[in-house]
Amino acid sequence: MFCLRAATDSAWATSAVTDLDAVLVDHAHCEMKAATNALSLVVRHSSDLGLVRALTEIAREELEHFQRVVDFLEARGLRLGSPPVDDYAAELRRAMNRLPATDLPLVVDRLLVGALIEARSCERFKLLIQVLPESCPADLRAFYEELFACEARHYRQYVDLALRAAGSLAALVEPRLQALAEAEAGIVRSLAERDARGTVHG
Amino acid sequence: MFCLRAATDSAWATSAVTDLDAVLVDHAHCEMKAATNALSLVVRHSSDLGLVRALTEIAREELEHFQRVVDFLEARGLRLGSPPVDDYAAELRRAMNRLPATDLPLVVDRLLVGALIEARSCERFKLLIQVLPESCPADLRAFYEELFACEARHYRQYVDLALRAAGSLAALVEPRLQALAEAEAGIVRSLAERDARGTVHG
Repeated sequence: MFCLRAATDSAWATSAVTDLDAVLVDHAHCEMKAATNALSLVVRHSSDLGLVRALTEIAREELEHFQRVVDFLEARGLRLGSPPVDDYAAELRRAMNRLPATDLPLVVDRLLVGALIEARSCERFKLLIQVLPESCPADLRAFYEELFACEARHYRQYVDLALRAAGSLAALVEPRLQALAEAEAGIVRSLAERDARGTVHG
Repeated sequence: MFCLRAATDSAWATSAVTDLDAVLVDHAHCEMKAATNALSLVVRHSSDLGLVRALTEIAREELEHFQRVVDFLEARGLRLGSPPVDDYAAELRRAMNRLPATDLPLVVDRLLVGALIEARSCERFKLLIQVLPESCPADLRAFYEELFACEARHYRQYVDLALRAAGSLAALVEPRLQALAEAEAGIVRSLAERDARGTVHG
């Protein structure tokens, strides 16, 4: 799917759907992290108003998704605890910092990391939808289908923003995305070995 | 106005309106900080879904305001640089940490600090509206009037959330707000001495 270099093991989804409550709680945290990450990029790269506008719009959309997940949590009588440590995102950022330097501005790497996180979420929602049990409420199934499409769109938006931010160096973006995707694949494989279920986004 | 213990010197507004461009840039940063502060409270206090829902809604509203300020910036050909150091908010949080401990949970103090920041913004928008020059575009004037009402509502929401979070200790909230307001007044006075113009929110 898209740029991803390692497919999530299909066992991930079959394991995840045995506890849809846990998927929802994890998903809520992922939406909030996606929103705050987009806003941290706005604050760090506020000189480009086009970027600022696009990322703020993404953040607002993630917050709307977050609120809808909270609706599902409340309807099911679930609690949202503290966000778990996010090894996937942390390792992805460490991998980004370890890549050989290029002439691309740092914002390009950050946007491509955002793109990969969205691509991975998209892949996992698709896997999840394929194995949702009959007992899954129709509104939750419809929500996941909507999110699948939305994550795909966000992936594309992040890549487009990276191309735009690269300016005359746009030709360097595709190989950089491939290098980051290679690192992301390694992280996903290593986390899968450690934790069979993992989270929606990695 | 509301709980504030020190009025902003009217010279602040007459000085500020001499450079509406600078007011807009500062205002954009304030909206973004208000949004990210609300979200940081969500992440820290995610066990209370009522609080989570209300603060996420406030954050979404602040982001919508941010985007509308960005529209004004673009229409005027202005740039949004890096956010300036926010001495007002930083000193307010330091003052909060220095207050004598009570049995109230920490979230109450954080919500009351949010309330005070909104109250101060509200007061300053009112002052600004009163001295806007004839040359101020009608849509910008209307935006400030809308924001004045909105900040007043957010102030009330933060206080209500603090009362709710205090539970059976709700009677302690009003004196705590007064103590924080006293500290806030001192900060506003001391920053006014240092910097004649200050920012929209303090």
